[in-house]
Amino acid sequence: MDLIIKNGTIVSPTATFKADVCVDNGKIVAITADAGTDADKVVDASGKMVLPGAIDAHTHLAMPFGGTISSDDYYAGTRAAACGGTTTVFDFILQDFGETMVDAIKRRDALCAPDAAVDYAFHVAVKDVSNGLIDTIEDAVNYGVSSFKVFMVYDFGVTDGVFYKVLEKAKSCGAMISVHAENKQLIDVLTERYLSEGKTSAWYHYMSRPEFVEGEADIRAIQLAKSLDSKLYIVHLANKEGVQAVERARNEGYQIYAETCPQYLEFTSEVYKRADGRNFVCSPPMKGEESRLALWEAIKKGLITTIATDHCPFRSYEKDWGKDDFTKIPNGCAGIENMYPYMLSAANEGKITFNKAVELCSYNPAKIFGCDAKGAIEVGKDADIVIYDPTKDFTITNDKMHSDCDHTIWEGIKVKGYPEATYSRGKLVFKDGEFLGERGWGKFIKRSSSGNL
Amino acid sequence: MDLIIKNGTIVSPTATFKADVCVDNGKIVAITADAGTDADKVVDASGKMVLPGAIDAHTHLAMPFGGTISSDDYYAGTRAAACGGTTTVFDFILQDFGETMVDAIKRRDALCAPDAAVDYAFHVAVKDVSNGLIDTIEDAVNYGVSSFKVFMVYDFGVTDGVFYKVLEKAKSCGAMISVHAENKQLIDVLTERYLSEGKTSAWYHYMSRPEFVEGEADIRAIQLAKSLDSKLYIVHLANKEGVQAVERARNEGYQIYAETCPQYLEFTSEVYKRADGRNFVCSPPMKGEESRLALWEAIKKGLITTIATDHCPFRSYEKDWGKDDFTKIPNGCAGIENMYPYMLSAANEGKITFNKAVELCSYNPAKIFGCDAKGAIEVGKDADIVIYDPTKDFTITNDKMHSDCDHTIWEGIKVKGYPEATYSRGKLVFKDGEFLGERGWGKFIKRSSSGNL
Amino acid sequence: MDLIIKNGTIVSPTATFKADVCVDNGKIVAITADAGTDADKVVDASGKMVLPGAIDAHTHLAMPFGGTISSDDYYAGTRAAACGGTTTVFDFILQDFGETMVDAIKRRDALCAPDAAVDYAFHVAVKDVSNGLIDTIEDAVNYGVSSFKVFMVYDFGVTDGVFYKVLEKAKSCGAMISVHAENKQLIDVLTERYLSEGKTSAWYHYMSRPEFVEGEADIRAIQLAKSLDSKLYIVHLANKEGVQAVERARNEGYQIYAETCPQYLEFTSEVYKRADGRNFVCSPPMKGEESRLALWEAIKKGLITTIATDHCPFRSYEKDWGKDDFTKIPNGCAGIENMYPYMLSAANEGKITFNKAVELCSYNPAKIFGCDAKGAIEVGKDADIVIYDPTKDFTITNDKMHSDCDHTIWEGIKVKGYPEATYSRGKLVFKDGEFLGERGWGKFIKRSSSGNL
Amino acid sequence: MDLIIKNGTIVSPTATFKADVCVDNGKIVAITADAGTDADKVVDASGKMVLPGAIDAHTHLAMPFGGTISSDDYYAGTRAAACGGTTTVFDFILQDFGETMVDAIKRRDALCAPDAAVDYAFHVAVKDVSNGLIDTIEDAVNYGVSSFKVFMVYDFGVTDGVFYKVLEKAKSCGAMISVHAENKQLIDVLTERYLSEGKTSAWYHYMSRPEFVEGEADIRAIQLAKSLDSKLYIVHLANKEGVQAVERARNEGYQIYAETCPQYLEFTSEVYKRADGRNFVCSPPMKGEESRLALWEAIKKGLITTIATDHCPFRSYEKDWGKDDFTKIPNGCAGIENMYPYMLSAANEGKITFNKAVELCSYNPAKIFGCDAKGAIEVGKDADIVIYDPTKDFTITNDKMHSDCDHTIWEGIKVKGYPEATYSRGKLVFKDGEFLGERGWGKFIKRSSSGNL
Repeated sequence: MDLIIKNGTIVSPTATFKADVCVDNGKIVAITADAGTDADKVVDASGKMVLPGAIDAHTHLAMPFGGTISSDDYYAGTRAAACGGTTTVFDFILQDFGETMVDAIKRRDALCAPDAAVDYAFHVAVKDVSNGLIDTIEDAVNYGVSSFKVFMVYDFGVTDGVFYKVLEKAKSCGAMISVHAENKQLIDVLTERYLSEGKTSAWYHYMSRPEFVEGEADIRAIQLAKSLDSKLYIVHLANKEGVQAVERARNEGYQIYAETCPQYLEFTSEVYKRADGRNFVCSPPMKGEESRLALWEAIKKGLITTIATDHCPFRSYEKDWGKDDFTKIPNGCAGIENMYPYMLSAANEGKITFNKAVELCSYNPAKIFGCDAKGAIEVGKDADIVIYDPTKDFTITNDKMHSDCDHTIWEGIKVKGYPEATYSRGKLVFKDGEFLGERGWGKFIKRSSSGNL
Repeated sequence: MDLIIKNGTIVSPTATFKADVCVDNGKIVAITADAGTDADKVVDASGKMVLPGAIDAHTHLAMPFGGTISSDDYYAGTRAAACGGTTTVFDFILQDFGETMVDAIKRRDALCAPDAAVDYAFHVAVKDVSNGLIDTIEDAVNYGVSSFKVFMVYDFGVTDGVFYKVLEKAKSCGAMISVHAENKQLIDVLTERYLSEGKTSAWYHYMSRPEFVEGEADIRAIQLAKSLDSKLYIVHLANKEGVQAVERARNEGYQIYAETCPQYLEFTSEVYKRADGRNFVCSPPMKGEESRLALWEAIKKGLITTIATDHCPFRSYEKDWGKDDFTKIPNGCAGIENMYPYMLSAANEGKITFNKAVELCSYNPAKIFGCDAKGAIEVGKDADIVIYDPTKDFTITNDKMHSDCDHTIWEGIKVKGYPEATYSRGKLVFKDGEFLGERGWGKFIKRSSSGNL
Repeated sequence: MDLIIKNGTIVSPTATFKADVCVDNGKIVAITADAGTDADKVVDASGKMVLPGAIDAHTHLAMPFGGTISSDDYYAGTRAAACGGTTTVFDFILQDFGETMVDAIKRRDALCAPDAAVDYAFHVAVKDVSNGLIDTIEDAVNYGVSSFKVFMVYDFGVTDGVFYKVLEKAKSCGAMISVHAENKQLIDVLTERYLSEGKTSAWYHYMSRPEFVEGEADIRAIQLAKSLDSKLYIVHLANKEGVQAVERARNEGYQIYAETCPQYLEFTSEVYKRADGRNFVCSPPMKGEESRLALWEAIKKGLITTIATDHCPFRSYEKDWGKDDFTKIPNGCAGIENMYPYMLSAANEGKITFNKAVELCSYNPAKIFGCDAKGAIEVGKDADIVIYDPTKDFTITNDKMHSDCDHTIWEGIKVKGYPEATYSRGKLVFKDGEFLGERGWGKFIKRSSSGNL
Repeated sequence: MDLIIKNGTIVSPTATFKADVCVDNGKIVAITADAGTDADKVVDASGKMVLPGAIDAHTHLAMPFGGTISSDDYYAGTRAAACGGTTTVFDFILQDFGETMVDAIKRRDALCAPDAAVDYAFHVAVKDVSNGLIDTIEDAVNYGVSSFKVFMVYDFGVTDGVFYKVLEKAKSCGAMISVHAENKQLIDVLTERYLSEGKTSAWYHYMSRPEFVEGEADIRAIQLAKSLDSKLYIVHLANKEGVQAVERARNEGYQIYAETCPQYLEFTSEVYKRADGRNFVCSPPMKGEESRLALWEAIKKGLITTIATDHCPFRSYEKDWGKDDFTKIPNGCAGIENMYPYMLSAANEGKITFNKAVELCSYNPAKIFGCDAKGAIEVGKDADIVIYDPTKDFTITNDKMHSDCDHTIWEGIKVKGYPEATYSRGKLVFKDGEFLGERGWGKFIKRSSSGNL
């Protein structure tokens, strides 16, 4: 036996119980009342929780955007992930015009494979479905990438028509479409207005993308999915009206899934009034308190399927480009190292159960995106394990983070409880604040079909 | 006294009672139990109903579209209106690029004024709000045109951004925005697909604009109105999901109004399977039976505010252009002479009350579009009066109609009860099947603000 | 001609216009732009409104209750009504065990006929349907009494089983059932508890009948009506959950009607904390602010069909019986003279339209309860007319009221605008604060079927 | 090691995986990829599923009712349970007037303990809360019985007032109240009517307890729970309107739970038209197809928390008492041996997942009723295990059942897959159609608090 973790409390979405966990060849091979100590390595987890590693289904590493590249490359990003208890990272690939989905995947995998410190998967953000490219979606599914994304905003966004075609194709081949839902037209009108009025501070980033900008697009996306009775996954849901639309559609029997991110659960649009407001600029922006509360309520009601980070940090000097013009601020914030500690802290404080935290951060993303070997402490699964110390208090500061970025929106936030150690397929990659993994250890995850929650 | 109508039964949205009506100088001057007979003209309406003339809030006369012009000009159209009991016609003006709203009105009024046989009003369909043209909306309101329209489809449709700006401006100056709601992107995708598959019959006009194409756009339009808390008037609502969206928004307290047309209450998409299916091509197309029933239900629940016709007929040879390609069929059907008889027949058969028919066809459009002198048999109102014979059976055939078009989708439809006479400001313009009015009698109606229902 | 009212502004639910009103033999015979002055009496109503007299569909005159009799007999009550612009009063008759409905009506009509100063109608509160008495409901309908009531509380309340039978019978013969909805069981539990804890002040009247006590019963009553698809009229609706239940049922297509009373629109349960709190004791009690606001909102949404008063005052010394035990306070308050001024004042202040006030206080109760000759200023209707001065400020004080009671819960309440004169079938019964009518003038109204709104 | 079950597929609500299960001293001590064979007993479960034993949260064993006693005593009932894969049985105790809850428990436990073949727990059906008996609810919770029931029907039913008090007390001490919801008043009215009309067949059992009889009571029960913000568990939910009420309350955030039974998922009221219709008589009766479908839909939406049986069979000669009078038929049917096979068959046929079947039949009842050692194949839990053969076809016939009753409503029903073996705390109690357990083996389960799902 390679490893025995003894005396810990195992948590799944439906169970919490004490048992020993035995790991061999990167797999969990036994869960037992008393596993003995016959192993290369025996770890005592008394008083600790033994959790499945988190899965961050939404990151943008080494992402070209806003005239620069997001500050964490595949190594830095996955290193930070490991140190936050995240053992699987989903990165978004932006398809080039004329490029097949599989070519896009190979292009980015070439960058990622040598660098990744934990296992990784890809979603492809679709731009071009003309000239038969639509059919390469199925090729990608066969290749092991069964999830795609469309943007309703940005210059690489798609029309409703392309969105419809992509949903239709995905339905036919076991793929899941996710969507960044904001109404581009309304953003353009409002942005132009505020700029023309000299309203250029970070606050106007929010004011040009207020609640209804996102709400309308959520509803429209859901309507398209309903018209085809196809599944849909809304990324970074951040507004109350969108929550209500998801609830309505689910009550009608449609399989509409939603992800939200810790930043929308913690912050409100008030942050954009801060002197460093531009550092919080991401899209969709944080919304009002009513939306923040609605998201927590949605978690309790089961309307939120997953938590992910939308990790896409930019360095301070890049954020400063938009000091006098909010449209020049690269959109995105750090979070990859903070998600699991943040959600587990919420559990530790009684806001949700630990079972729920594990469900949202690990079990559900594994299940919905076809990572069959991930998402649970279970015999046969990969030994992606976090040992969590619920008694450890931790204050997030950028110097303790393992990202390459020079600041974090989470600076000063306190969490109750923190990961003590992270294992990736049985290998210790993080311990007591220190990254112990290695560049290139992470493997591409060939996934089964998506959408089977 | 010019005219006394004796012994008829007067109907308003809330009343049904016997009384004599006295008319002088084009106005109703008294309603009385016994008005005597001291008048230039005394008409006995024993056994008849005395109704306010209908108001058709949606027509396209002399409308350039699909490479031709709709077959009824302002004379033919208003003549036909008079013969169907309609004494006020709202025509749509399509703004030219760079043109102010008032210029657009004057341009078309120059055509209409010499021709109109009954009073008329205009809505302006907005295309261009750049370079300060947005502000000319207010000028038009002051000119007496307090309602505007946006198309979400066609090459003269507008983006969500322009739609938003127009709603915002209208809210600030007492105007009402109406919208033709269909999702252009989806229509384009579906149309291209069917054409490429050689599916070119009229049935594919419907298949490329099915329920969800309209439903999504209804919902989006409502979301935009909600974001501004502005009023909105959805023209020719023809699908169930749209009805539900209107209901939801009204339950939330928003002032969302909806119009439907007799063709959506009578026909379903099955007509497109007929040999003459192309003659029924209009947009939005007729939908399935479920939608048809939902519209009747919506009338009963008070969710439909007005009935109008979207009268826009094209001659058979023009319809034939699309024999082998549904996209080449000019969109639009006749109806201006059929609305009031159709809805009154529904009342006569007990489907709705006569009060409701009068409310939908006369009282509400007058009220919501600021025609202060119209919409009721009431002291002080214009003497726009219909004497209706509830005992007369009538089968619609094109030869009995007064339009210039050579066919009608209403051919062979039987109605129970029919207008016997129509008065426009006290002048007899229709009697016993014959048009008695005169070209140019109709006056431009300078309206007060819209939206005050 | 007996009477011409000149130059006033006539208001109906759907119209507001200037015209003269001509009255002859107690009927409205003409509405005309200029009626001349050839009449026994000509009244100038310049600057005034000419309204249909109000109809108070809910009063308890000379009502034995709580060991005494309500303080206004049929003369005092109808006198006060006239002085508040109310020209029709509906009184509740409590059937005796073993008594047929028609006998009950005759029994009370014998008391009422000699006394009534304005026209009156009856509802019968059903207690006993055994031994064929259920069938006497139809006899009563034929007699001209087409509405009945069940109480879900009090010792004269009925079981759900009797309620069901009554609804079923009513449906079969054109009658309408109204219901006093509170859950007796819950009241008993809470009352016993508070008394046993020595909590005896008026506040505990409310605490033992809080929102949910009424809400549950509203919902149950609606369920019974739905099970039979029968109509139902909920009297004195006073809680938010009940409003929501009405809305839901109406959205489902059921004909559920609701009445509320001015006291629920003006006061909240806070009044029970006042030193004179016992004077406000009525059932259901006033509820929290949330319910009060929900009732106003319901009025705007059309969920409230009628306003009535539940007028049932008791003298101070009777109210004092419950000084140290809230269960000994006779339930009921004055209001018959205040309803129309209160609702018209709300219109005058812009809270609702005058059209809405007239609809709620006159048109709707006439229509729904089959008073065919009442409810509108219309040729052919009874000349029950109020001349209303919108410019007159009025502060309600008991000494200005025309009830026999020695206090009023409305003491000190200011209204904007006040009735100047009231006509009952053309006879002046109130003018400038003074009652001018006569005992016995009022006639029993033989009604057609109820429920036809 | 006492027992190793090898090569089976383990199923929990969130997991399905192959592993070996090790059992020692009645507990599950390890789940492992390869457990070896070092045990007293090694069972090969290749191709089989290894499931937690079912928990039947609703049975009436040796229940005095309708002038007789239900035909299965504690031995026969638990024997049949074991043979159907059910390893925990909850029986209802009917409190006597004046009896404390603990005394009631002891009274029945004295009967049950010597007889039970599998572990058992009790709910107490409350009749009397006067004279301080309400407080003995808390004593019972401390004794290990944290769930109670109220009947809204039968002569042992309670008033809304008692129901309210019981909910209130339960909330204060960690207990859960379940409710049999039907409206007694309506049943009485309808029953009397049908009997008086000579309508006495089993069909009139349904006709006197139709959908709305149950729906109203469900809604009322929920209203009472809402008024206290207390939890509520509705037993044997069998109608669509009740499902909708549960959905609404849960969407509002209330903890309302619902149980349904296989008979409501399989049969409709049509069975009462059969010659042997009286054998299907239970209360609530089976309803129409719309309700049956709504229940399946509710399962998919997560609105149904548990499946239980309401097992309460009577012998044919007892059922025959009601041949000519449906009111004389003892209410109740068999089911204790059929629940798990039925629901697992539904999974096997793809109607639901196996995870869902396990959740409904084992995990959820354990969780919600505080059976901490039951409900999962998990290290530390009791070794209540079913080995299930998904390939075995089975037709239910009474001769194959292990109940003492002489017939079953499930006669002839085919299921796909069947339990091969059942273990109760590691002891083999059923194998290949044969009962192998022993009288008195079953233990009283001292439960923690209820309601923590």
